[in-house]
Amino acid sequence: MPADQLAATIANIIIAVVGILSLAFYGAHSYLSTCGWEEVYVCVVELMKVFIEIFLEYCVPVTFYETNGNFIVWVRYAEWLLTCPVILIRLSNLTGLADDYNKRTMSLLVSDIGTIVMGVTAAIASGYVKLAFFLLGLCYGCVTFKLAGQIHLEAFYSMPRGKCRRLVKWMALVFYTSWLGYPVLFVLGTEGFFRVLSPWGSVVGHCIVDLLSKNLWGFLGHHLRIHVETFVEDDSLPGAVRSSMAGVARRKSIQKARSNLTAKGQHCCELDLTSPAAAITPKSPHPSTPGNQPANADDDDEIEYILPAQFLLGNPRWHSSLAGSVRRVHPAAAAEGSAADAPKTD
Amino acid sequence: MPADQLAATIANIIIAVVGILSLAFYGAHSYLSTCGWEEVYVCVVELMKVFIEIFLEYCVPVTFYETNGNFIVWVRYAEWLLTCPVILIRLSNLTGLADDYNKRTMSLLVSDIGTIVMGVTAAIASGYVKLAFFLLGLCYGCVTFKLAGQIHLEAFYSMPRGKCRRLVKWMALVFYTSWLGYPVLFVLGTEGFFRVLSPWGSVVGHCIVDLLSKNLWGFLGHHLRIHVETFVEDDSLPGAVRSSMAGVARRKSIQKARSNLTAKGQHCCELDLTSPAAAITPKSPHPSTPGNQPANADDDDEIEYILPAQFLLGNPRWHSSLAGSVRRVHPAAAAEGSAADAPKTD
Repeated sequence: MPADQLAATIANIIIAVVGILSLAFYGAHSYLSTCGWEEVYVCVVELMKVFIEIFLEYCVPVTFYETNGNFIVWVRYAEWLLTCPVILIRLSNLTGLADDYNKRTMSLLVSDIGTIVMGVTAAIASGYVKLAFFLLGLCYGCVTFKLAGQIHLEAFYSMPRGKCRRLVKWMALVFYTSWLGYPVLFVLGTEGFFRVLSPWGSVVGHCIVDLLSKNLWGFLGHHLRIHVETFVEDDSLPGAVRSSMAGVARRKSIQKARSNLTAKGQHCCELDLTSPAAAITPKSPHPSTPGNQPANADDDDEIEYILPAQFLLGNPRWHSSLAGSVRRVHPAAAAEGSAADAPKTD
Repeated sequence: MPADQLAATIANIIIAVVGILSLAFYGAHSYLSTCGWEEVYVCVVELMKVFIEIFLEYCVPVTFYETNGNFIVWVRYAEWLLTCPVILIRLSNLTGLADDYNKRTMSLLVSDIGTIVMGVTAAIASGYVKLAFFLLGLCYGCVTFKLAGQIHLEAFYSMPRGKCRRLVKWMALVFYTSWLGYPVLFVLGTEGFFRVLSPWGSVVGHCIVDLLSKNLWGFLGHHLRIHVETFVEDDSLPGAVRSSMAGVARRKSIQKARSNLTAKGQHCCELDLTSPAAAITPKSPHPSTPGNQPANADDDDEIEYILPAQFLLGNPRWHSSLAGSVRRVHPAAAAEGSAADAPKTD
């Protein structure tokens, strides 16, 4: 057995073990507290794919062989089509409390499916047609990445400070690192242009990227949900909701969680949700003094993140959609932002 | 040129002409009043697919040839993957007014993608493996059909009576007739089991089904949106909102449309939305007397539809989710329904 084939088998076995352990973990958690259906679905599909890849890799629907000499590992693309939309649905509901999705989720799903379909078409084709479909796939992929970035950012700002926000940061990092790996592996593999990677090398690469994008990201997302639930439960002293949290507290999902807790007989603090003006203050260059911050709050997060956000999204209006949760803006950025906003009437 | 090849070419040309005309129509409507992005996206993808099929059907990424003798019309499956989720997104927002989707939309999309992926896998495979994946695809498809049925039913009951409800009925009829055509064509074609249809015959069949499921269904959906908008605009006399419409009037989407109209300076009637108890009455076997019905209201729709709905969905709790819009139930059905509901505590 050549070294790369051995490596591929070992990588697949590692994924299988991780998948089984994750499934057991999620099973226990869905019994003990809470677990999203998305994690479980992704885990089950990934596990089935790995077993098929270990035992039946050369059989026809798993890999198919074209008359022009190309061969396509169809199980890989089928798994992407089954799991990627579910991962993005998970992304659109990071807290796990909301039951509503918006138009952006739909655009995200449509662009993601477009990316994969163009990828499969590129893999099947050859020559310039392959390049054309690969580039078309990249266009779809850019839309997906942009929308996913917006969602990660909004999630960051609507989360309670501290642990939850750090988790969202890590999730964004893992998401972008791993999802960028797929086009890179495509270009380097036999289905792409450079044929640097052997088919087995490609399997090892995909295993690493899968481990990050599905297992690790899903695991972080699961922990985020648990933390958000804990936050809603712990913040039960009167007046404990900080002024910067009013936006979060007013969210339908948080209110739903609160009413669930109240129904269970647990005490929740009184919220003043009737005065939106108090929470959605006009942007001011002077940072407001936060009322009741916990000791470990990383106050600099917002300043740190607004600049790359404006740079990334190129839309000065984007943070008006985060009304109420973004309170403190870097003075320079705020001055620029309000200057950019002022002449723009929609 | 054999007769079936000629028929296939003519069918494709008809679809192309219909597609171009639809696109022009939607373009005009998006300028004049309103048009959903879904119709346009589906129309563009379908048009590109038809042109590719007319001019490049034998080229490799359009159709690919396996070493075992199978050939797969990949453009067909790629088009399904690109358009079907968009059609279902359109289905989940029939009025065109809401900007929120729920968990059911996500299940619908995931099951639909699953159906297509299993279909492609079945087409690639042969023998018993083909049958296994076809059956797996049917399972996914049944979930899609069940969820789509629920959405059609809910849309029916939350619509204003008359034209809008008749449109939803027609949409449901067209949806089920046409979507059922795909598995039938699969089974009869060369990619399936019986090989009764020649590849050209299969193209003709798919053209007919596409014309129904994409063009006609989309066209009906577009008209439904226009009618819903007209309904919101016309119903502007004080007290014109009927008691049975209170549920609809309280919907976020309708309220949004109303506030848009008010912002434009158009008069809207006063609504009493503060007393939910008045609208969401407890189920009673005695039909309530509707207040202000238009002359052409088809009052029997509800009685006619609740029975097959209960039969179809097998869940006596389903119509509690339609609270406020379902008012009159057939006495026998209501007695059965409340009897079934009573012992069931969730």
